[in-house]
Amino acid sequence: MIVSLIKHATPAQIDEVADRIRSFGFRLHQSPGAERSVMGAIGVGGDLTACLESLRALPQVERAVPISAPYKFVSREYREHRTVVRIPSPAGPIDIGGDDPVVMAGPCSVESEAQIMETAERVAAAGARILRGGAFKPRTSPYEFQGLAEDGLALLARARERTGLAIVTEVMTDSDVALVEQYTDLFQVGSRNMQNFALLKALGRSRRPVLLKRGLSSTIKEWLMAAEYVVGHGNPNVIFCERGIRTFETATRNTCDLAAVPLLNELTHLPVIVDPSHATGKRSLVPAVARAAIAIGADGLMVEAHPAPEKAWSDGAQSLSLDEFDGMMRMLESYRELWRQSRLELAYA
Amino acid sequence: MIVSLIKHATPAQIDEVADRIRSFGFRLHQSPGAERSVMGAIGVGGDLTACLESLRALPQVERAVPISAPYKFVSREYREHRTVVRIPSPAGPIDIGGDDPVVMAGPCSVESEAQIMETAERVAAAGARILRGGAFKPRTSPYEFQGLAEDGLALLARARERTGLAIVTEVMTDSDVALVEQYTDLFQVGSRNMQNFALLKALGRSRRPVLLKRGLSSTIKEWLMAAEYVVGHGNPNVIFCERGIRTFETATRNTCDLAAVPLLNELTHLPVIVDPSHATGKRSLVPAVARAAIAIGADGLMVEAHPAPEKAWSDGAQSLSLDEFDGMMRMLESYRELWRQSRLELAYA
Amino acid sequence: MIVSLIKHATPAQIDEVADRIRSFGFRLHQSPGAERSVMGAIGVGGDLTACLESLRALPQVERAVPISAPYKFVSREYREHRTVVRIPSPAGPIDIGGDDPVVMAGPCSVESEAQIMETAERVAAAGARILRGGAFKPRTSPYEFQGLAEDGLALLARARERTGLAIVTEVMTDSDVALVEQYTDLFQVGSRNMQNFALLKALGRSRRPVLLKRGLSSTIKEWLMAAEYVVGHGNPNVIFCERGIRTFETATRNTCDLAAVPLLNELTHLPVIVDPSHATGKRSLVPAVARAAIAIGADGLMVEAHPAPEKAWSDGAQSLSLDEFDGMMRMLESYRELWRQSRLELAYA
Amino acid sequence: MIVSLIKHATPAQIDEVADRIRSFGFRLHQSPGAERSVMGAIGVGGDLTACLESLRALPQVERAVPISAPYKFVSREYREHRTVVRIPSPAGPIDIGGDDPVVMAGPCSVESEAQIMETAERVAAAGARILRGGAFKPRTSPYEFQGLAEDGLALLARARERTGLAIVTEVMTDSDVALVEQYTDLFQVGSRNMQNFALLKALGRSRRPVLLKRGLSSTIKEWLMAAEYVVGHGNPNVIFCERGIRTFETATRNTCDLAAVPLLNELTHLPVIVDPSHATGKRSLVPAVARAAIAIGADGLMVEAHPAPEKAWSDGAQSLSLDEFDGMMRMLESYRELWRQSRLELAYA
Repeated sequence: MIVSLIKHATPAQIDEVADRIRSFGFRLHQSPGAERSVMGAIGVGGDLTACLESLRALPQVERAVPISAPYKFVSREYREHRTVVRIPSPAGPIDIGGDDPVVMAGPCSVESEAQIMETAERVAAAGARILRGGAFKPRTSPYEFQGLAEDGLALLARARERTGLAIVTEVMTDSDVALVEQYTDLFQVGSRNMQNFALLKALGRSRRPVLLKRGLSSTIKEWLMAAEYVVGHGNPNVIFCERGIRTFETATRNTCDLAAVPLLNELTHLPVIVDPSHATGKRSLVPAVARAAIAIGADGLMVEAHPAPEKAWSDGAQSLSLDEFDGMMRMLESYRELWRQSRLELAYA
Repeated sequence: MIVSLIKHATPAQIDEVADRIRSFGFRLHQSPGAERSVMGAIGVGGDLTACLESLRALPQVERAVPISAPYKFVSREYREHRTVVRIPSPAGPIDIGGDDPVVMAGPCSVESEAQIMETAERVAAAGARILRGGAFKPRTSPYEFQGLAEDGLALLARARERTGLAIVTEVMTDSDVALVEQYTDLFQVGSRNMQNFALLKALGRSRRPVLLKRGLSSTIKEWLMAAEYVVGHGNPNVIFCERGIRTFETATRNTCDLAAVPLLNELTHLPVIVDPSHATGKRSLVPAVARAAIAIGADGLMVEAHPAPEKAWSDGAQSLSLDEFDGMMRMLESYRELWRQSRLELAYA
Repeated sequence: MIVSLIKHATPAQIDEVADRIRSFGFRLHQSPGAERSVMGAIGVGGDLTACLESLRALPQVERAVPISAPYKFVSREYREHRTVVRIPSPAGPIDIGGDDPVVMAGPCSVESEAQIMETAERVAAAGARILRGGAFKPRTSPYEFQGLAEDGLALLARARERTGLAIVTEVMTDSDVALVEQYTDLFQVGSRNMQNFALLKALGRSRRPVLLKRGLSSTIKEWLMAAEYVVGHGNPNVIFCERGIRTFETATRNTCDLAAVPLLNELTHLPVIVDPSHATGKRSLVPAVARAAIAIGADGLMVEAHPAPEKAWSDGAQSLSLDEFDGMMRMLESYRELWRQSRLELAYA
Repeated sequence: MIVSLIKHATPAQIDEVADRIRSFGFRLHQSPGAERSVMGAIGVGGDLTACLESLRALPQVERAVPISAPYKFVSREYREHRTVVRIPSPAGPIDIGGDDPVVMAGPCSVESEAQIMETAERVAAAGARILRGGAFKPRTSPYEFQGLAEDGLALLARARERTGLAIVTEVMTDSDVALVEQYTDLFQVGSRNMQNFALLKALGRSRRPVLLKRGLSSTIKEWLMAAEYVVGHGNPNVIFCERGIRTFETATRNTCDLAAVPLLNELTHLPVIVDPSHATGKRSLVPAVARAAIAIGADGLMVEAHPAPEKAWSDGAQSLSLDEFDGMMRMLESYRELWRQSRLELAYA
């Protein structure tokens, strides 16, 4: 349920409401960053109707309503205004869901210092704000390159120091969360782990934001529920990333469900970005899909770029060369300008 | 195979080439509108290698190469330059694949004179060039409205007369082709009929252009092969229409495969448009998907619009009201401007 | 709605009920073979509640209830007892849905007299009752073999004469129904035509039974609705054929949805058979899937068999050789015996 | 690569082969239970051709061949004879892949001592050999019951003591492997974790066998590769469990891909069982699918059964009551008899 208090509720009045909610067997949820005058509560056992009635009788309660969506804290019913997820970086905070789409770029895997440094410098110069790169790689085959692990994380940190970019990197299991947290600015949960609930709970207890990629064949509802795991366990900073779903079509690696972006914007207050590289698996299609993603209103992009895609240890076919990435960023500029104008219009509407 | 002749080949020289091709058991295909100096030939039985060798020996033959794609005449190997499909209309010819994206709009079904006239006038005023409307309706249930049949076609023709719009309407079976041809400017082949080969062959023998919607679960390759049926049987004017594919996701009616647009642009010279109404099944998502379709390079849009969507006899949930359609067209204008600029750049590249 | 009359209703009483139903704007449907004392009626415009109330007031009416399924005449609500579809053959009638599973076998395409005769004799000897063979072939590519057309039909008829087998062959469009009807004992509607509504309506007006293959990506509900087109237009003899659906899996040609068999048995009174050849696309898997189909309760099988699969003009990879077919039939015998026992138990339950 | 030695190779000769393999940069893999005279080796860096040639030159080497499948140790190329996975139990070892299909049954979740004891006793009496029950539950929503955790494991252990059944229960993350290992006889990896590579590696280091459920939308190849993770990390005892895949069809919870059973039998030597409960999500379909699974050659079944399905804390709609389970087991007996006969025939072939 969601309980809104009157503007000038006193701390004692707020505590009274909290106590009453708990006395009916519900658990309070205080979303950080939310105004103190809105409280959320969940619970299975409690008598919802009786509790709502009792709360409405209090003078300091303006509104007490049940949430009808199966996901609570990520729904727009709970929070109407869009959430801005702030990522720290040496060059100052980066806002996802703010007034400019944010581009994350880098190689599929961290391979060497030279590779990650060259990539970081070039994508930063082209306008990317966040460096991606896998140190722990989920690979279909045990015989494929599994990532440089902590050595890879250290290289990413060095690239952050040198370029001022923030870092996003994948964490594959709850037992690695503490390690990865020492290095990354933004955790990435990969498609295969979207419903790794132990991992989601561990990330819910972390302070760092989470980029939640859509599962290979996850419905929008399952995706929202996965985010609810993270938010419900205490971490309100989740960003959705559409990266294509698995269908019968084999001409592209996946089928990019771009309509998921405006649909999520109706259902949740959290930001949504698009990964055109995994969505298509084909370098030549990446710029066009990136353009469409910005046009449809995505809060950002995640793009694979590599100094020599033909020699990449993984995902070479879908990586842009650094020159191609540069060309794509220039091409995107007029679409980003339209994006900014439409956000401004929304803000003044 | 494709055979290119030298620029100043004489008619006698051209005939010599044609005879030689036929003597090896191949069938000549002369794509209307193609330069006379390029000839295509297909055939199962013939000895391809011997024929190519023999042709290359002729002085008037510049190039003779096999086509490696399973589709021949729709492939970019056969024709590098993009095809412009010209639709006649009382207000002058409309070019699909030309220098401006073309918008087709109208109701799912033709219901009455008042309904189709009001819709036609309003969508024309908003900038649509072609009026859509179903007279023969493929409906999952035999108990749902099956369309007004010829009465519906006549109403469409009257709307064309009044507004100057061209008309696109669905034909469901080869036995209706002659009837529908009397009224329509552009045949629509619906998703369920994408592999109705009898229908495709009949349309191949028609002179009117064909809008070929993608089958519910058709691969890109099957879609190209379906177009090859039409073109191979004599009608070179085919337009592809992406309208969403069937996946596990149920939050939208279908999953719009927008990446199919740039992919088709690599594989075929024929134009491609997008239908955001069927692709999403949800009115609120249509404008965003339309915007993305233009951004990704579609040659046009097909959009459902109705004077009173809540009362529509079919597909009300995905139809825009006429005011909403008007708003969408205004919103699209800056994206269309970027589209025109990028086509110009291509033309001068 | 379904209206059951008392056992000894007089013709006049029956007429009275019929008149009353029509007076409320509904259309009567008299399923051939149904007892005269059960009447079905459908209609969009009529006032259902008022009509039911009025009918219940008549002494000759035992029960008058609405049908809640979107499909009416194919539903088990309309007819509780399972329908037996009877196919004529020179060797006497063949019952599908009766007391023994029926096997249909033969080549994908009719290729020559020798091929079809050899196949017919061998599959008949092995225990098949119906000969399959395509004369009109729906092929993804226009450059693939399209079938022998009427010559193929004539060869099938000759094979019937020689062997006593009945014949099943595909009809692809409504304009071919009259021609194919002259030769075949059972019409086959292929996957790509499951929602070719013009064809379904034309078959509804035919007297011959219809084998309705499931569409590549058709839901159970859409499949039932497709059958409703045929039955609702007057032809009660429809047999469902599960032949695999399209999924993301590419190791098999399709994914055989065997659970559809018991599910259909809950939802419809019509018989259901399975085609393990198209369902798997792989010869080595056909016998195992055939065995499972019998075990799960299918009323029959449709299996591709060819004198020399490696030389078949189509679908060779999934065709059994005639020896393999023979082996499969022997292997199936003990499963058929269990099938017959369980049907007997049902009959005496 | 696979290297077969002559029958009477001496230990010194064997060591010579091993040294030579390692000297070319490959890693030896000694599958426990394999005859000493077959050695497997894998590696990315090594020069395969040179190594094979060098090995073939040794008199003690009978055969040295590359493995062409992307999975090595789970492939039939590596081991032609089918693997029997032995599960310990108080009532003696249970063989999966042996001479009788094995039934695992029990509730979705362990809920209470009374519930698990009653279920265990009844399913044991009906012929099940292994008790299933979830203590850690992967649930789409964080607000659904997450399982009794270690308390649930302890209850399972008590049920084993009382009934002599072995136990199978799910482990959701690598950090729980040590805990679950103390209680279970067979680890279950759930669908959502089929590509949780950290978990697969941890299980590869365990001594207990692993039941690997197919991912919601995993291809056969990905599934084999997931097993290769477990086997390649040292644990040869993997059992595949087909539990339905996600498709567009919504009439059943999933689509049961039964043809995967004979297909896996061609590709791998490991056993395969079927879970008809998750595959259909519908109690009424479970017995028919179980029957088909036995008929198609599955090495066993995993079935949900509960004392009061309508009150189950999870998956009630697909659970059989204990009486229904009993009825199903009796019905299956004649199909199991046919299964045993066909295995015997194979053994003597």
